[in-house]
Amino acid sequence: MKSLLALFLSSCALSAGAADVPAWRHAHEAALLRDFTQLLSFPNIAANKADMRRNADFISEMLRARGITPRLLETPDAPPVVYAEWIVPHAKRTILLYAHYDGQPVNPAAWTDPPFAPVLRRGPKGPVVAPDSADAVLPDNRLYARGAGDDKGGVMAILSALQAIRELKLTPSDSLKIVFEGEEEAGSPHLEAILRSHRDLLKSDLWVVCDGPIHPSGRNLIVYGVRGDMNVDLTVFGPIRGLHSGHYGNWTPNPGLELARLLASMKDETGHVVVKGWYDDILPMGAREKAAMDATLAFDDDTRRALGFAKTEMTLGLAESATVGSLNINGMASGDVGAMAANVIPDHAAAVLDIRLVAGETPARQFAKLQEHLRSQGFLVLDRAPTAAERESSPKIAMITLRPGAYGAARTPMDHPLAAALSRAARAASPNGLVELPTDGGSLPLSVVVDALGAPAIILPIANGDDNQHAADENLRLGNLWAGIDLLAATLLHDQ
Amino acid sequence: MKSLLALFLSSCALSAGAADVPAWRHAHEAALLRDFTQLLSFPNIAANKADMRRNADFISEMLRARGITPRLLETPDAPPVVYAEWIVPHAKRTILLYAHYDGQPVNPAAWTDPPFAPVLRRGPKGPVVAPDSADAVLPDNRLYARGAGDDKGGVMAILSALQAIRELKLTPSDSLKIVFEGEEEAGSPHLEAILRSHRDLLKSDLWVVCDGPIHPSGRNLIVYGVRGDMNVDLTVFGPIRGLHSGHYGNWTPNPGLELARLLASMKDETGHVVVKGWYDDILPMGAREKAAMDATLAFDDDTRRALGFAKTEMTLGLAESATVGSLNINGMASGDVGAMAANVIPDHAAAVLDIRLVAGETPARQFAKLQEHLRSQGFLVLDRAPTAAERESSPKIAMITLRPGAYGAARTPMDHPLAAALSRAARAASPNGLVELPTDGGSLPLSVVVDALGAPAIILPIANGDDNQHAADENLRLGNLWAGIDLLAATLLHDQ
Repeated sequence: MKSLLALFLSSCALSAGAADVPAWRHAHEAALLRDFTQLLSFPNIAANKADMRRNADFISEMLRARGITPRLLETPDAPPVVYAEWIVPHAKRTILLYAHYDGQPVNPAAWTDPPFAPVLRRGPKGPVVAPDSADAVLPDNRLYARGAGDDKGGVMAILSALQAIRELKLTPSDSLKIVFEGEEEAGSPHLEAILRSHRDLLKSDLWVVCDGPIHPSGRNLIVYGVRGDMNVDLTVFGPIRGLHSGHYGNWTPNPGLELARLLASMKDETGHVVVKGWYDDILPMGAREKAAMDATLAFDDDTRRALGFAKTEMTLGLAESATVGSLNINGMASGDVGAMAANVIPDHAAAVLDIRLVAGETPARQFAKLQEHLRSQGFLVLDRAPTAAERESSPKIAMITLRPGAYGAARTPMDHPLAAALSRAARAASPNGLVELPTDGGSLPLSVVVDALGAPAIILPIANGDDNQHAADENLRLGNLWAGIDLLAATLLHDQ
Repeated sequence: MKSLLALFLSSCALSAGAADVPAWRHAHEAALLRDFTQLLSFPNIAANKADMRRNADFISEMLRARGITPRLLETPDAPPVVYAEWIVPHAKRTILLYAHYDGQPVNPAAWTDPPFAPVLRRGPKGPVVAPDSADAVLPDNRLYARGAGDDKGGVMAILSALQAIRELKLTPSDSLKIVFEGEEEAGSPHLEAILRSHRDLLKSDLWVVCDGPIHPSGRNLIVYGVRGDMNVDLTVFGPIRGLHSGHYGNWTPNPGLELARLLASMKDETGHVVVKGWYDDILPMGAREKAAMDATLAFDDDTRRALGFAKTEMTLGLAESATVGSLNINGMASGDVGAMAANVIPDHAAAVLDIRLVAGETPARQFAKLQEHLRSQGFLVLDRAPTAAERESSPKIAMITLRPGAYGAARTPMDHPLAAALSRAARAASPNGLVELPTDGGSLPLSVVVDALGAPAIILPIANGDDNQHAADENLRLGNLWAGIDLLAATLLHDQ
């Protein structure tokens, strides 16, 4: 049995094995950069199946070169999932490492360099660096290509961490399974089916998702959950056709004003949604979660100032505001503005709402609360356009529909034993510090994983915050890849 | 001196001279139709100066053919104003008859028949009628061409009424002046200058504007005023760039919601503008005006039902609601709706307001009230985008600007002696009845006429309500032209 001192040390220092990783990594940076550059040279838009197979084949080759046998999980109409495993004898637990090798569609005209001819530059949009020069591997260099940050960088970090562990003759603390998906940016349309049809193969105790950027402050980041997401279309009806605002102004109700009133009725001045029961289903946060969020408050003022506004909507900090379901007006429109504006009472006004869900909430229940709110504001609530009879009898008419693809939140408690062990190791391997968030404000369909496999998930990103993910000139800062390899290897060696 | 009975009869029966007009008109319908068809064959988009001169020349020719000497009032860059006069010896008063010969721009692809090759059809979009057939002049036939209803029909009715009076050897009750403008649909950019530079020539006691459609009930219509008009652009600012609604939702204020709240704050549930002092400047209506408006209440329910809504905005009737300044949301926009909607907190939200002014109100004062309202709602009110320092110090920021071209209302009291005389004659010449409105809900820059010339104005339209003015397949129902000739001649013979 370990002494208390040893236990303490294990919670704040790198394990002996993990401590060797940076030196190994440093010695192999040039070779890793060559592999990464080649990986980025394969176009990776999920819809182009032949391209995706070339990616999967190259990733398989990289796995084999690292002594790991790959397997392609095939599904009709989907790019293959590249699967691999490293079963550790007598390991009690299994971690599943996830990244995706597809990228967002590209508009090459918007790019400085071609998106699939990776170019190395000194700093953001700096001068080109020769890939075979001694300076090529410097940490502030950036490799520009689609997928560099999101998420072939994640694939490369996982492959490299496994290679480091293997070549240093170390053993992961847990058995490892690896899933590299090929259509995340297309909305993962086949993921649930793939997971369900390989339920036993993919059985694990925890998913570690290597995707997204680290904390804006430059610190490493572990995120224990994501919000769910649903979109709602809302239309308020006015007269049956657009009317002259002079001839009919004051007499014919304006649907833009009705929509404005309706939207204004949904929140109070402190940003709280006043739709009845809106927050009733939220599962409370624990003490560890609260402490982790409080630790991020110091970053908020800088973020707010950089975004150019004086006062936050709710009085909560940024991290804590993500633990509350949100209701955002993505867009609203009635008639035209600017040069196209006409003197008209429009025939309708429309809005699209984005509702983020936290653990405990479901799309169906939030949608029902919203429908009920519309009724409480005097609206006839429909899921289609009104009939003539409904127009004649109902002063206020709204159509509201829930878009397909809504899903709930997923959250792993921060005191989950395996997650906590990884967190301790990650903190020790984070020279700039580690930020932990109980949940991200954004969404991923992790609830699909949880529902299909029963495994909780955490997110351990490596990319720089300014990696231009989803945009032109996507890039990965090499220092983030190097630190990410160290970080991942350390977490996989958490008990050593 | 006339007996009381004679006075009574004069207020409800056609004068002897006017009674002869319908028979004369009926005998000349075929010839009038030929002239009108030829007039409509000249393209009349104000921007095409050579086209407009051909129109002016043809109208001049028609005046000469009717024994009236035309004169072209020339202004650089403007189509000529066709001017004429019929000075009646010893007449104490002068009426100025106004119509415009230009039309709205056309998209020929949207038209059933070419817009400048007039086609006669039996009823709305009915079968083509040969222009030389015996049935050509039937009242339910419609002549299709740009300008048929708006407003070459007005030009033709004036020319024909004058011809009828002259050929029946009658004398108008007042001296007459005629102004046919050539750029009304382009916003009359030179009208004020033309009026001011011909102030003495155009001196008159009353303008009679022959433009627009008759009452939707099919009754003739006299309108004694128009509302003024102003447009306001309003922008509410959010974060300095669009933000991910997941990562920042609940924390970053949404400008769409701020705009919704601001717009909702401007009116109460009964449609009254609650901007402080909004209605303070309105000049009250007299008893005749109130009685005239009450007489129109019976039409309101049918109109409301046809427009497909259950409850009017204010509880006033349609006619009376035009006697109150209005505030309409022409358009509002933030982010996108429909298929283009993204999960974003937009960086701004915009609205365009249409504010109609009634007699007593000025654009400058209404704009100042609106600015003050924004301040009362906690906004920093700017006429430009905010600086970084303003963003940092002001939780709510709005930019509001008044568009150029705003103008006030114009209204002639219904007991104006000459207007009242015309009204009596018009009522007698209206077999279906006459509706009188103290003011139209819509706007014309008549205040420009009033300000430039000091003459009040009334509007005496002749077109069918379904003439598709400003749209494709514009048309005039021939029966409206025939009745319009009778109506105009009768009003010009009001004391006979």
